[in-house]
Amino acid sequence: MKVDLLIQARWIIPVEPESVTYENHTLVIHNNKIIDLLPADIAQQKYQPVTFELLDNHALMPGLINSHTHASMSLMRGIADDLPLMDWLQNHIWPLEQKWVGETFVKDGSKLAIAEMIRGGTTCFNDMYFFPEITAQQAIQHSIRASIGLIVIDFPSAWAKNSDDYLQKGLALHNELRSESLITTPFAPHAPYTVSDEPLLKIHHLADKHELSIHMHLHETLHEVEEQKKLTNQTPIQRMKQLKLLSPSFMAVHMTQLTDADMNLMSETGANIIHCPESNLKLASGFCPITDCIDKGINVALGTDGAASNNDLDMFGEMRTAALLAKGVSKNASAVPAMTALKMATINGAKALGIEQKTGSLSIGKEADVIAINFDYIETQPLFDPISQIVYATGRHQVSDVWVAGRQLLKNRSLTTINGDDLKASTTEWHDRLIS
Amino acid sequence: MKVDLLIQARWIIPVEPESVTYENHTLVIHNNKIIDLLPADIAQQKYQPVTFELLDNHALMPGLINSHTHASMSLMRGIADDLPLMDWLQNHIWPLEQKWVGETFVKDGSKLAIAEMIRGGTTCFNDMYFFPEITAQQAIQHSIRASIGLIVIDFPSAWAKNSDDYLQKGLALHNELRSESLITTPFAPHAPYTVSDEPLLKIHHLADKHELSIHMHLHETLHEVEEQKKLTNQTPIQRMKQLKLLSPSFMAVHMTQLTDADMNLMSETGANIIHCPESNLKLASGFCPITDCIDKGINVALGTDGAASNNDLDMFGEMRTAALLAKGVSKNASAVPAMTALKMATINGAKALGIEQKTGSLSIGKEADVIAINFDYIETQPLFDPISQIVYATGRHQVSDVWVAGRQLLKNRSLTTINGDDLKASTTEWHDRLIS
Repeated sequence: MKVDLLIQARWIIPVEPESVTYENHTLVIHNNKIIDLLPADIAQQKYQPVTFELLDNHALMPGLINSHTHASMSLMRGIADDLPLMDWLQNHIWPLEQKWVGETFVKDGSKLAIAEMIRGGTTCFNDMYFFPEITAQQAIQHSIRASIGLIVIDFPSAWAKNSDDYLQKGLALHNELRSESLITTPFAPHAPYTVSDEPLLKIHHLADKHELSIHMHLHETLHEVEEQKKLTNQTPIQRMKQLKLLSPSFMAVHMTQLTDADMNLMSETGANIIHCPESNLKLASGFCPITDCIDKGINVALGTDGAASNNDLDMFGEMRTAALLAKGVSKNASAVPAMTALKMATINGAKALGIEQKTGSLSIGKEADVIAINFDYIETQPLFDPISQIVYATGRHQVSDVWVAGRQLLKNRSLTTINGDDLKASTTEWHDRLIS
Repeated sequence: MKVDLLIQARWIIPVEPESVTYENHTLVIHNNKIIDLLPADIAQQKYQPVTFELLDNHALMPGLINSHTHASMSLMRGIADDLPLMDWLQNHIWPLEQKWVGETFVKDGSKLAIAEMIRGGTTCFNDMYFFPEITAQQAIQHSIRASIGLIVIDFPSAWAKNSDDYLQKGLALHNELRSESLITTPFAPHAPYTVSDEPLLKIHHLADKHELSIHMHLHETLHEVEEQKKLTNQTPIQRMKQLKLLSPSFMAVHMTQLTDADMNLMSETGANIIHCPESNLKLASGFCPITDCIDKGINVALGTDGAASNNDLDMFGEMRTAALLAKGVSKNASAVPAMTALKMATINGAKALGIEQKTGSLSIGKEADVIAINFDYIETQPLFDPISQIVYATGRHQVSDVWVAGRQLLKNRSLTTINGDDLKASTTEWHDRLIS
């Protein structure tokens, strides 16, 4: 049979089924999709490919899903470090955003983030920021999968004047993008302390009507939880439950300071947690007890947060930190083993984003979102277990090749859809503007 | 004036003085030492170098000091993950060591570790393992600076039969190596639960007599501290104090479960803490409260621990984890800012190892242990603050060049003293042996 692409690799980690690693197998891709996965010798007899890739020191696995980003903020990477959340937001980020955020900022920032993500093996990101139509354009132009949050916030910005305006613009964008196969558009109400009940109720109804997910910061800090309790006599999670937002389509980002009752609400409603361990550490926001959450059956995915707080979009680093931190926080060295961390960064992300039919594992019938990791580095030798090596020892620069829906976006470390020189030039211009 | 080497760099971070970054300056190296640091244009008039290096997208900084390693254990990288310390040691590591550890294992393992360290910008390591003479040989052969622990442990090993035998072999090695300018030889009693009072008292006297430092695991886990308290009615730190081991020449590795009294003992005696945040997380050993320790004036340095537990010797990752984790644990986003993390990985390490007259900063008169970091990567753009960028966004693969005592060990990412192909071959042989 004639097919578009065969990738023969030393190891293939499909993620589903779990903890399985195939050796010397071949992934078969045709019409953007994975159509087979079989021993290399049989594949050579059965399929005649247009393109054949032999990756003999490599592990092939599903592309990583970064389940919480503010892509454009990459232009502010490291502009204000070592500060608590509210100081960082109120005295640094918000004033800069007020001055500079517009279409060009979002275009150049999203492009920088997309380049960094592709180079680091991320094939899908779940974004929340102003001018989402521009981020969507960039994702489409550079062929990366994206979940583009329709941001809603009570206060005016360069993008919209009030919550109704945000909702209207968001719905219009949703309509515009519904035929784009790489794009989904969840609502993205910013946070409990920036979005009031009325727009949240509207979001609940509109999300139901249009079958959209909801992506929201929730329980980021002790301060947030305590202030909300004073105002509403409820934890933010309880308030979201009362507003009927909690469901399998709800993605709650951060989730520190959780009580058992909070976790039970998440578990009962099927809502998802997006864990951002490095952002939580850096802003001293608190710990998300992911071991308990996983035990309660909650789906936990992984995100880097924006590069202005993290300061990178490195899902390898984030997997590692998630696996290490869970052990420290739960006082259990067996908590979040490597395979669990890998699932958080792939299939669990796909589930949270509601796109697990399309991506998140190397399963037959899914779109071919695939990355190759080159283990032929001193730093990843000897190699006893590829899954453990990926989580605990591999650097993102070891990602050699990346495909999204069968299209190759990184070829032996080179970006195919983005010009690196142009990108550096625009980034340098923004650097100079932001410090002016 | 004729000199050996001028390195002109876009940024130079001397570490001492603190928080200073020179732009477009030149480091002048002659007879293995730093003899000047001055604006590039003046340097060009004043010095005629044999070799001139222009690094115009780079930051130059002191080489990193990995203050706690078990270099040879790199051969067991990832062989047993996601297990608690005693299970990991007793059921995996110790049986493997008993079967395999000998001169060849230590030679090949040390070489692998040295290659990884040089490629990651580490110019000095503080080691503890069996057959220290072999690790010393490897360090000398490949020209990296090392502090080679004279290991002491109550039980017999392939290297020595009993504690007196360890001490004797250690002292003989110390005598052999005293003229080696890159090598120092602290005593390395393994841990409170593996070394009894009698050898510890001997170590105290011998260390005093020969002016040697002492490098020891201490307060690694709650289990250790509780068991020791049952046996001795003291915390391990109190026991070391009573045995007169605590002094500015004492390096205590791990240091979790600290009371105020414990920290005060460390502070009063001038003893050093070697913090290994990733190892402590991975083995769920507990948290070292480094923010409090630093506030009490204790010198805190940084180590990766062995690659069998970490699973790498990546001091960039370790700096980052140290800076992030301190914020999370102390609930203060300003704790351990980037500059503090950088000091922990450089000058504080040199102080702990007792070699701050020789290395740890780019100060005139010190030996030229220097690394260059290439910021010309999408992942480190834009660049607002080089120090912040190094700690929060830079990967170790961005280290382009490394010099130890003026000798170049890494040149534009290529090792100059180690053959990578030979290294991979011996590592693969050990892989096959260890799983046999």
